[in-house]
Amino acid sequence: MSILTRPILEINLKNLLENYRLLQKIAPQAKAAAVVKDDAYGLGACRVAKLLYDQGDCRCFFTAHGIEGEQIRPLVPDADIFVLQGIGKDSADSFYRAGLIPVISSPEMLRFWQKNKIEGIKPAINIETGLNRLGFRENELEQLSREEKQNFSLVMSHLACGDEKGHFMNEHQLNNFNQLRQKYFPKLPASLSASDGTFLGRDFQFDMVRLGAALYGINTAPYRESQMKNVVTIKAPVLQTALMPKGDFAGYSATYRASSDRRIAIISIGYGDGIPRSLSNVGKVFFPRKEKLHEARIIGRVSMDNVICDITGIPGIKTGEEAFLAAGFYTLDDMARDAGTISYEILSRVGMTQRYIRREIMPVN
Amino acid sequence: MSILTRPILEINLKNLLENYRLLQKIAPQAKAAAVVKDDAYGLGACRVAKLLYDQGDCRCFFTAHGIEGEQIRPLVPDADIFVLQGIGKDSADSFYRAGLIPVISSPEMLRFWQKNKIEGIKPAINIETGLNRLGFRENELEQLSREEKQNFSLVMSHLACGDEKGHFMNEHQLNNFNQLRQKYFPKLPASLSASDGTFLGRDFQFDMVRLGAALYGINTAPYRESQMKNVVTIKAPVLQTALMPKGDFAGYSATYRASSDRRIAIISIGYGDGIPRSLSNVGKVFFPRKEKLHEARIIGRVSMDNVICDITGIPGIKTGEEAFLAAGFYTLDDMARDAGTISYEILSRVGMTQRYIRREIMPVN
Repeated sequence: MSILTRPILEINLKNLLENYRLLQKIAPQAKAAAVVKDDAYGLGACRVAKLLYDQGDCRCFFTAHGIEGEQIRPLVPDADIFVLQGIGKDSADSFYRAGLIPVISSPEMLRFWQKNKIEGIKPAINIETGLNRLGFRENELEQLSREEKQNFSLVMSHLACGDEKGHFMNEHQLNNFNQLRQKYFPKLPASLSASDGTFLGRDFQFDMVRLGAALYGINTAPYRESQMKNVVTIKAPVLQTALMPKGDFAGYSATYRASSDRRIAIISIGYGDGIPRSLSNVGKVFFPRKEKLHEARIIGRVSMDNVICDITGIPGIKTGEEAFLAAGFYTLDDMARDAGTISYEILSRVGMTQRYIRREIMPVN
Repeated sequence: MSILTRPILEINLKNLLENYRLLQKIAPQAKAAAVVKDDAYGLGACRVAKLLYDQGDCRCFFTAHGIEGEQIRPLVPDADIFVLQGIGKDSADSFYRAGLIPVISSPEMLRFWQKNKIEGIKPAINIETGLNRLGFRENELEQLSREEKQNFSLVMSHLACGDEKGHFMNEHQLNNFNQLRQKYFPKLPASLSASDGTFLGRDFQFDMVRLGAALYGINTAPYRESQMKNVVTIKAPVLQTALMPKGDFAGYSATYRASSDRRIAIISIGYGDGIPRSLSNVGKVFFPRKEKLHEARIIGRVSMDNVICDITGIPGIKTGEEAFLAAGFYTLDDMARDAGTISYEILSRVGMTQRYIRREIMPVN
């Protein structure tokens, strides 16, 4: 037994690399671009980009913002870095310094680009096919001059329901994409799919797939057993164990009351570490033992720095023991289901805080 | 009109300082400690600690973790820095380097401290009075020797329902706290309340109040109109406007369908920037104009980097215009209500991402 206070974030970069290679096999004719926006969903864009560049031969990256692209540039010197939110007055400097490729989504942004071009860079054009988010609408495509159309290097769009095989939106967007690109950009390399669309088959893969979530172990094809290896493990130490007498309340606002004597553990992790507060009274914490995986229910409200869980009947839990919040046996997808959200949201929060002790499992080079 | 891509986080440190001074007036006989854990709930622990030290004469700070205490130490050289999660093998170094004061919550942690004492430091003791989280239980207090009891500098506990005036738990915990401290630590300075308890009156204030949430503008007394000044404003540029024809869907999983032609705006901010995904289809975005505050409903799912909102009927919205996600007229408390959570959770996420352009409004020195 020892006293420990900090949560632990374990990032399995070996599995991340294997996920990348598996996805390459699923879309063998397409370029496999890596989406490392939002600091690689919180896992560390520089670490991930360098790994995929060095050991996965990845030469194409996507970020959301210019500053994110600039951060990874030194690690991927000759790669294409596309920026999904595009270029603007508040981000143009990053594009110049790092030679980033903007994804242009509107006529206004195109005009900005034309006044602020970077020599040798041909932007991508994003066209709207059904998501009703960023992208040129058809009436705007009609306005493009022949020369303007020739100054792009990639035509792309984005699926709304790629994680639901058989959803009518997939065929609908595929048809829209094919019609529009054949009409306006017949010779341009094309990209429609992120991770989820990659699993929808060759029709959806085109010349490039943009791989984010699945790299990080998220099951973007939830209609079937996950093929991805787990990347993220979250653990935190038991800071204290105690008896909770029958009738007592636990946590803020006294939302849990013990209807019999309980044994509880206080775990040193909370929503300040990215654990969703919506796991209050419904989430789980695990204690893996040789003979059995013990599950303890979170009781009361998740607070900023702690969760309380019910360890009644789990033998021998001591201060300093590591409780598992997420792991291969209970993935971020499972946690997200319990929390009423998606694993993307949890992942993008967890990685942001400096309070974790970070450990990386590296592939053999 | 201009093209802008990055969200903006505006932190009003002038108002934060005024909140601190107001709280001091509400608890005039108590020491006003500042809780800057979790990077001052995301607003920047170093900035906040320095401000309150220099201009608020604050000499007492609380963090959750040792590393957080170590970060602020250079800015508050002679202040007391208490660490709520206490000291352990994985954090002891920070305590030594920065002269931090652990809050000891269990006999196990006390034994660890006794083997790893820092000269000149007397820890605080946290006692359990009804929250059933961290803290000594009474049977554990009984075991303390007379000498052990004399080696603390502060006795503290924490309220479960301090934000609900009249909740029976408040009197219950107050009574427990008074009984226990009088029995075991009759001469020790005492602290029971965070921001919420500070508003419950003098009985709850003791010798020290621990001010976190209210400093940052959160209404911790929600049974009455907020007395706190707003600290956080979140804005993001309109990246694109478009027509959304009747029958079209918006966002992931096609959860919104237009029942008539709509005008929409895509705003460059998402859950990757800490905006809760649970605002999907229920959240609001604001466009303040001289004559009127226009409100636009978020439609479809909030995605990682964007939200879509319905701007039908709002005149003249152009690319580059700033949409307000949170401000004095729609605070983080209001956003949290719409999102089904508490503002603490949102605040602690928003401040973590590097994608924001940060602006600070400083008090006149």
